[in-house]
Amino acid sequence: MELIQEALKGSERAIARLITMVENEMPSWRETMRTIYAHTGKAYLLGFTGPTGSGKSTLVDRVAHLLCTNGYSVGIVAIDPSSPFTGGALLGDRIRMREVVTHENVFIRSLGTRGGLGGLSQATSDVIKILDAAGKEFILIETIGIGQDEVEIAQIADTSIVVSVPGLGDDIQTIKAGIMEIGEIFVVNKADREGADHVVTMIKAMLDVHPLSDAWQQPVIKTVATENGGVDELYENIMLHRKYLLKSDLLAVKRKERIGREITRLLERRIAQYVHNQMKEIGSLEDLVEEVTRRETDPYSCVDRLLPLVEKK
Amino acid sequence: MELIQEALKGSERAIARLITMVENEMPSWRETMRTIYAHTGKAYLLGFTGPTGSGKSTLVDRVAHLLCTNGYSVGIVAIDPSSPFTGGALLGDRIRMREVVTHENVFIRSLGTRGGLGGLSQATSDVIKILDAAGKEFILIETIGIGQDEVEIAQIADTSIVVSVPGLGDDIQTIKAGIMEIGEIFVVNKADREGADHVVTMIKAMLDVHPLSDAWQQPVIKTVATENGGVDELYENIMLHRKYLLKSDLLAVKRKERIGREITRLLERRIAQYVHNQMKEIGSLEDLVEEVTRRETDPYSCVDRLLPLVEKK
Repeated sequence: MELIQEALKGSERAIARLITMVENEMPSWRETMRTIYAHTGKAYLLGFTGPTGSGKSTLVDRVAHLLCTNGYSVGIVAIDPSSPFTGGALLGDRIRMREVVTHENVFIRSLGTRGGLGGLSQATSDVIKILDAAGKEFILIETIGIGQDEVEIAQIADTSIVVSVPGLGDDIQTIKAGIMEIGEIFVVNKADREGADHVVTMIKAMLDVHPLSDAWQQPVIKTVATENGGVDELYENIMLHRKYLLKSDLLAVKRKERIGREITRLLERRIAQYVHNQMKEIGSLEDLVEEVTRRETDPYSCVDRLLPLVEKK
Repeated sequence: MELIQEALKGSERAIARLITMVENEMPSWRETMRTIYAHTGKAYLLGFTGPTGSGKSTLVDRVAHLLCTNGYSVGIVAIDPSSPFTGGALLGDRIRMREVVTHENVFIRSLGTRGGLGGLSQATSDVIKILDAAGKEFILIETIGIGQDEVEIAQIADTSIVVSVPGLGDDIQTIKAGIMEIGEIFVVNKADREGADHVVTMIKAMLDVHPLSDAWQQPVIKTVATENGGVDELYENIMLHRKYLLKSDLLAVKRKERIGREITRLLERRIAQYVHNQMKEIGSLEDLVEEVTRRETDPYSCVDRLLPLVEKK
């Protein structure tokens, strides 16, 4: 396909069109991704995970800027959970990215969900592959990190950066949600605010209880992204972690785990979609709902009745 | 089962033990839920959805208090996305609930996830049913509302309350994520902070673009939950919305949709778990990962090879 060839050469227009195709799971999606896949595996993936209001977009912006300055080409994927009703995101993250959009080799893309059952994870993973195949050397992924899909996305990264911030009500709230153990680098952003040292102390205490490994001591870095404070130190630590993964062969291990998870997810999704379509064809859902409403049966028993029907088809 | 009988009579100890059984999906889980189900459908469900730091726990606490004062028995379910690694939540929400725990007929339960593919939605839905069957008249559900699972949980409620707060960086951030269209009542908490009126204006503007219906004008209420400010008004609006749903028969429609979604989800989950187990038995995943790593094939093509194996079993 010509579009793929254009994207592989780095054409922004072609990349954008491919991403749109993939996001909407167009009929040619699977075939396109097959072709793309052969050209992947070169990009290094950085995950930035943190709650709303932690300023992680600005942080991503600053790190991307440093990467560009050092001659790397950069792609950015910002996860933007979209409405299940309108299918559209209320607001993209694009408008908040100011510094970086002036660089020619940065490609920013906000993602909506692709709906249900690992859809967001798969869409993100596909978009990353397109940017990878198009020659981006670093891909920065920004997520809020809550919910199963979001945790999976955080696991996609080669280096995971967990962003906290002082003063978000209950401090521990900002770093729970299964994200703690994913972090290889911790950042306390807006560190000029009161309470920053307290957050640092708390993260360090948690890391003492759940250390990641002996070989990699997770750093806790204070930043003030809006004023570029601490961003150099963060950049250095990202490069250190990358070197550590490459040296110890852990990068290959991580990537193999990622492939295994992706195969399983794709299989589950395929089967779930099949079930979904079957349910529409069987058409007995409405009758079942009426029975359940009258409490003559229950949802758990309905599944036992539906299973053989789905299998037979 | 004696435990179920005790729970139906309202024994807190029995309710707690049943919930633990359900959360861990013990072998008897399905059978237990079948028995429970016949006793459900009486409780009224209130959903509170809002970002970290919006003070929604305090708000839940205050509304629960008012409900108790008016003679209702209340259950609270707080969603607490737990770690995918340790399986444990870093911090429950229990410690933040102070006012309400002194009431005898309030039952608070923090929920961890039940892992993967709609697990959190199902666990929440099951716990709600147990509280319902145990005679709780109002069940308050607190979620962060991000990600597929969380949006589904917000949809579980009869009345959905969306909580915003001024000053969380980009204001619109706090109310995006597919939650906007779910809201039947909007609350701007911490309304004594600067920018509260701006958030109210913005929500109203959005409601003008996407109105829910002609018959129910979604109210936007300012609260200062810590000082009980605006909580009476919120309470009144909850009761108004409940009356509206009952009168218009919309409550029955909502609940039927909920049953339909639950049957579909249970079926998808059952099949996904089956696939997961099959993948372990087939045992060829490692070989596939090696092939993909060498780029001799791709994850999308692997699925085509695995599907017939899963079907044959």
